[in-house]
Amino acid sequence: MAQPRVAVIGLGSMGLGMARSLRRAGMDVVGTDISAERRALFAEAGGAIADSAVAAATGADIVVCVVITGGQTEAVLFGPGGIAGAMPSGSVFVSSATMPPGQARALGLRAVEAGIGFLDAPISGGARAAEAGSMTIMSSGPRAIYDAALPALEAMGKRLFWLGEEPGLGSAMKTVNQLLAGANLATACEAIAFAIRLGLDPKQVDEIISGSAGNSWMWGDRISALVAGDYTPRSAVDIFTKDLGIVMDTARASNFPVPMAGAALQGFLMAAAAGMGREADASVTKVYAQLAGLELPKAAND
Amino acid sequence: MAQPRVAVIGLGSMGLGMARSLRRAGMDVVGTDISAERRALFAEAGGAIADSAVAAATGADIVVCVVITGGQTEAVLFGPGGIAGAMPSGSVFVSSATMPPGQARALGLRAVEAGIGFLDAPISGGARAAEAGSMTIMSSGPRAIYDAALPALEAMGKRLFWLGEEPGLGSAMKTVNQLLAGANLATACEAIAFAIRLGLDPKQVDEIISGSAGNSWMWGDRISALVAGDYTPRSAVDIFTKDLGIVMDTARASNFPVPMAGAALQGFLMAAAAGMGREADASVTKVYAQLAGLELPKAAND
Repeated sequence: MAQPRVAVIGLGSMGLGMARSLRRAGMDVVGTDISAERRALFAEAGGAIADSAVAAATGADIVVCVVITGGQTEAVLFGPGGIAGAMPSGSVFVSSATMPPGQARALGLRAVEAGIGFLDAPISGGARAAEAGSMTIMSSGPRAIYDAALPALEAMGKRLFWLGEEPGLGSAMKTVNQLLAGANLATACEAIAFAIRLGLDPKQVDEIISGSAGNSWMWGDRISALVAGDYTPRSAVDIFTKDLGIVMDTARASNFPVPMAGAALQGFLMAAAAGMGREADASVTKVYAQLAGLELPKAAND
Repeated sequence: MAQPRVAVIGLGSMGLGMARSLRRAGMDVVGTDISAERRALFAEAGGAIADSAVAAATGADIVVCVVITGGQTEAVLFGPGGIAGAMPSGSVFVSSATMPPGQARALGLRAVEAGIGFLDAPISGGARAAEAGSMTIMSSGPRAIYDAALPALEAMGKRLFWLGEEPGLGSAMKTVNQLLAGANLATACEAIAFAIRLGLDPKQVDEIISGSAGNSWMWGDRISALVAGDYTPRSAVDIFTKDLGIVMDTARASNFPVPMAGAALQGFLMAAAAGMGREADASVTKVYAQLAGLELPKAAND
C-alpha cells in the first residue's frame, strides 16, 4: 500500500515535531500554519508547505489538526476558509487540540453530517515527544476511522490508545491528564519554593524528591530543570490556564467538584496576572519567590 | 568493630519493619512499644523485646525512635518514664517521627543540654520500604552524630541524606516531601473519580496516566492498586491529616502561602469526617464517589 498523504494544520511546537515525525516515517506530508514564520521552519526542514488549510487538505488521506483550542479546530473545519468541503471522500480528520469533551462530541456529530471521518485524538508528552514521534495519543471515534488514521498515529506516537466509539472520550481522558499534570506542577512549584524558604538546598531537595513519595512526572520534567537553572519553556503558563479552565468547565458541567484543579488554576492565573503567561509553566515558582523574596537558582545560560 | 546495640522504640508498621531490617543486618536489636500486641509481633519474628522504653534504651548505642508525633518523641525522651537519663554516654538518639522543623530544632537543643546526641532523621517510603531496609532517610544534626548512627541508618535505608548540622533541616525536608505526596495523592484521588464520572474505564485511565505527564509516585503506588481492587491501607487518612497539618503550621509560622497543600488537607479532612480516618489514604476517592454516586472498582478480595 502506498504511504498515505497527510496534511498537518498547525505547525506550533507540537505540530512541527509531529509533521517531522510523519516525514521521517516516509509519508507524503504537507504542512500549513497561519504564521509564515512557522511555515518557513517546516520548509527549512525539507517539508512541503501550503499557504492555506484548504490547499493542505486537498488530496489528503489524513488531516492532522494540531491547533490550540476547540474553537480554532471548529474554524479549521467549518469556518470561513474551512476544509470540510475540500476533504476527499473517505479521508479522516484527526483532531489533536485540547478541548472540552462536550465540544469534541459536538464536532464529531457535525463532522458525521458533513461526511467527514472524525477522530477525537488529543496528545500528550510535550514538544520533545512530538519531535521524537513518541507521544501518547488518546483517541476515540468509530473504530474504522481509528484504523484508517493508524499509520499517521503510529508515526507520531509510541503509546496509542483507543477509548471507544464516541468522540469526546479521548478529550475526557486528556482533561483528566491535564488535571493531574496541572495540579502536580502547581504543587511542585509550591514545594520547591517552600523548600528554599525553609533553608534547604534546591539541588539536594531535587535529588531526594526524585526518589521519594513526593515525586511526579512534572517534578522530574520541570523542577529538576529549574533547579539546574534551565528556564527554557517546555510549555507556557497560558497553556495551563487554558487546560485547567477546560477541566473546571467540564467538571462544573458534570456537577463534579475538583478543588485540587481549582487551586492549581489559581496558581497559573497568578503567574499570568504577573505577566508570565508566555513564560515556562514552572514560572508559578517565581510567583511564590517574588511574594516571599526568595532567590531562585540562577539561569544557567545567563 | 562489634555490631552496635540498637533500641527501636515504636513497633508500628514502620518501626516493626525497621527493627527487622536492623536484625537482618546482624545487629543486636531490642524493640519496645506501648502495645503488647505490637511487641508480640516482633517477638514472633525472633526479636528481643523490652517492656519499657527505659529498659530498651539501657545499654543501647543507638536508639531509633519511630513513634507518630513530635509530642510522643518528646515524651519518650523527657516525659515520665523518659529515656534521657537512661541513655549511655556517647549514645545517639535517632528521631524518625514526622514533626514540625521548629519542634525538631527545639528537641535537638534540649538533647544537647541533656548530653544526648540527637539526629533529626525522618523517613519516607512506607511500610514495604521499612521491611526491605530500603527507606529514604533525611537526616540533619552534627556530622559526628550522623556518622555514629550510620550503621543503623545503612541497615534501614537505601537512600541516606545528610542535610546539615542543624536539627530541623531533616524535618523541613520531610515536610516538603509530605506536601508533595499529600497534594499529589489528593489530586490523584480527585482525577480517578472524575475520570469515572466522565465515563472512562479506570483500568485504561491507569494504563494511560502511568506513562503520561499526569503520573506521580502516589498515582503508581495508590491509584493503580485501587483500580485493581486492592484497598489494603499502605498508610491511613489520619497520617495525612497530621502531616499536612504540619505543612500548614510550618508554612504559617514562616509566613508562606501553600494553597495546594491547603486544598489537599481539606480532602483528607473530608475523608476523616466521613469516618475513614483509619482507612487507606486513597479513600479520599470514596468521598468523591459518595458525593457523585459513582461506582468504584470492586475490592478484589471481597
